[in-house]
Amino acid sequence: MVKNFADKLVEAVKAKGSSICVGLDPRLSKIPKFLKMKAMEGGEHTPFGAAASAILVFNKGIIDAVHDIVPVVKPQIAFYEIFGHEGIKCYEETLKYAKSKGLLTIADAKRNDIGSTAEAYAQAFLGETVVFEGEDEVVMSAFDADAVTVTPYLGWDGIKPFIEECRKYGKGIFVLDKTSNPSSSDLQDLEVVERDGADEKKTGKALYEIVGHLIDSWGANDVGENGYSFVGAVTGATFPEQAKRLREIMPNAYFLVPGYGAQGGKAEDVAVCFGGGSGEKGLGVIVNNSRGITNAYEILGYDETKYAEAAREAVMKMKMDLERVL
Amino acid sequence: MVKNFADKLVEAVKAKGSSICVGLDPRLSKIPKFLKMKAMEGGEHTPFGAAASAILVFNKGIIDAVHDIVPVVKPQIAFYEIFGHEGIKCYEETLKYAKSKGLLTIADAKRNDIGSTAEAYAQAFLGETVVFEGEDEVVMSAFDADAVTVTPYLGWDGIKPFIEECRKYGKGIFVLDKTSNPSSSDLQDLEVVERDGADEKKTGKALYEIVGHLIDSWGANDVGENGYSFVGAVTGATFPEQAKRLREIMPNAYFLVPGYGAQGGKAEDVAVCFGGGSGEKGLGVIVNNSRGITNAYEILGYDETKYAEAAREAVMKMKMDLERVL
Repeated sequence: MVKNFADKLVEAVKAKGSSICVGLDPRLSKIPKFLKMKAMEGGEHTPFGAAASAILVFNKGIIDAVHDIVPVVKPQIAFYEIFGHEGIKCYEETLKYAKSKGLLTIADAKRNDIGSTAEAYAQAFLGETVVFEGEDEVVMSAFDADAVTVTPYLGWDGIKPFIEECRKYGKGIFVLDKTSNPSSSDLQDLEVVERDGADEKKTGKALYEIVGHLIDSWGANDVGENGYSFVGAVTGATFPEQAKRLREIMPNAYFLVPGYGAQGGKAEDVAVCFGGGSGEKGLGVIVNNSRGITNAYEILGYDETKYAEAAREAVMKMKMDLERVL
Repeated sequence: MVKNFADKLVEAVKAKGSSICVGLDPRLSKIPKFLKMKAMEGGEHTPFGAAASAILVFNKGIIDAVHDIVPVVKPQIAFYEIFGHEGIKCYEETLKYAKSKGLLTIADAKRNDIGSTAEAYAQAFLGETVVFEGEDEVVMSAFDADAVTVTPYLGWDGIKPFIEECRKYGKGIFVLDKTSNPSSSDLQDLEVVERDGADEKKTGKALYEIVGHLIDSWGANDVGENGYSFVGAVTGATFPEQAKRLREIMPNAYFLVPGYGAQGGKAEDVAVCFGGGSGEKGLGVIVNNSRGITNAYEILGYDETKYAEAAREAVMKMKMDLERVL
């Protein structure tokens, strides 16, 4: 039987002793110079190839330094797409390397489309692709991430194909709900009318709450042993009140929480997201930190050659900061 | 001065005498066998590389057959991502080839994220990437599409970085509004409360209408000579009543209309989307057709070697079908 992704996540959190997700969102200007120099020396590279190669070495260094103290990494694909297919190759290799080091991987891609297209995305990120037919048939994975982030704007039929791949391959999704950016209020905070029968209108619920109820229902058939579904939710650390409300609405959802650190979210803001599931303490949230870990060498004033050590130190500090509020 | 993308689009529509967008959404099972055989013969290919190579030849055949009678092509990136970085290389080459044949290109990627990440997406799809620094600096484009589709769920600060690239490079965006899939009602049709002052609540507007007003405001500063903004909207042909309403709400938006053909949308349903801008007849809409054109050889009963001729015939039929309702 295929293990539910949410149970894999719980196991990993316990094994690593932290709920930290390291965001691998490489900005070339923040990659140490000595790595870029080395990458450019290999004369066979195109500029995008050299950039991708420097980033891959950087990512491997970070992964080596933190793999025993964090359960999961989350590379954001935009920072690879800007280098075209060579960036995407680096993305694939980053996922593969993280997996080889015993990490779970979340492809942060926020994909969304109509059903037939969502199927292709789900195959690309979580499942397998059948290449050719008959005796020429080969089955391969493009990205083979453990989970992918998705956007709910198209509704259920754009989510369903992902859920099917999750069931088949023991994978997960995190559906955007209340995002960490300032303008998330433009749509997500709109007040929505609910109708009770034909005439009676009730108001007061925000769109992000409705989305919370949808996510809860989308994941209801796939709750694992620990009381969490493989359908998780993304809720920004920058909106703790809304996160608290969402914890009530989605008791079975594991939360992926961006916004800690560089975006201003604090441990206290994240604390409200823990809970749900079978009620075991310290579960229910994966807290992402990208720049605060990968750029720690700058923040902590280390030499750039010590970027990996600095990343580990930043993770240890974040771990203590989170433990403080639990 | 950089030309507004909406004006480029109007020029292309007039020059080609149609408002048809050919969706290049290749499913390997629908690629003619003789192309796949040929691709597999090249022994140096990986399976994904061979698949991507067959698709590229197929796409070039379609582009050659229709480039003088359609203004724009729209490759959906999910169908390339399933072949990993080799698929993405094929995506880049498809865009490049279409451009070399005088076509405008829409990258159908439905990207969305917080501001700093949206910047990276905008650079990847529309703008340029700066690689390395100082005397090693190289500026390159990853995809260099003329426009990209985006999802509005994160609000203004996730859209703004795209608008900045559009201004700089004469590019455009199409923001999802009312999508063509059945479940689009889950979020997009929700009834939203508007407050007039502190107390008075007005109801009756659907979320897709609110999104329409947002898109209208997001594009208001960038209306070109023909009365259209480079901020367009995606509205499904499968929901003509909603599209009619959106035409009123967004007089300056060029509509990208999916759902014609395979998804059930008819020419009559599309007709309501024309209009807006300076009021010139026959403008305001780009009607997408994917399977109906690229699989026309099956639909029309042609031999698979005649897939390109069949595609051209399907475009000519669609052109007449659309002219009938104008």
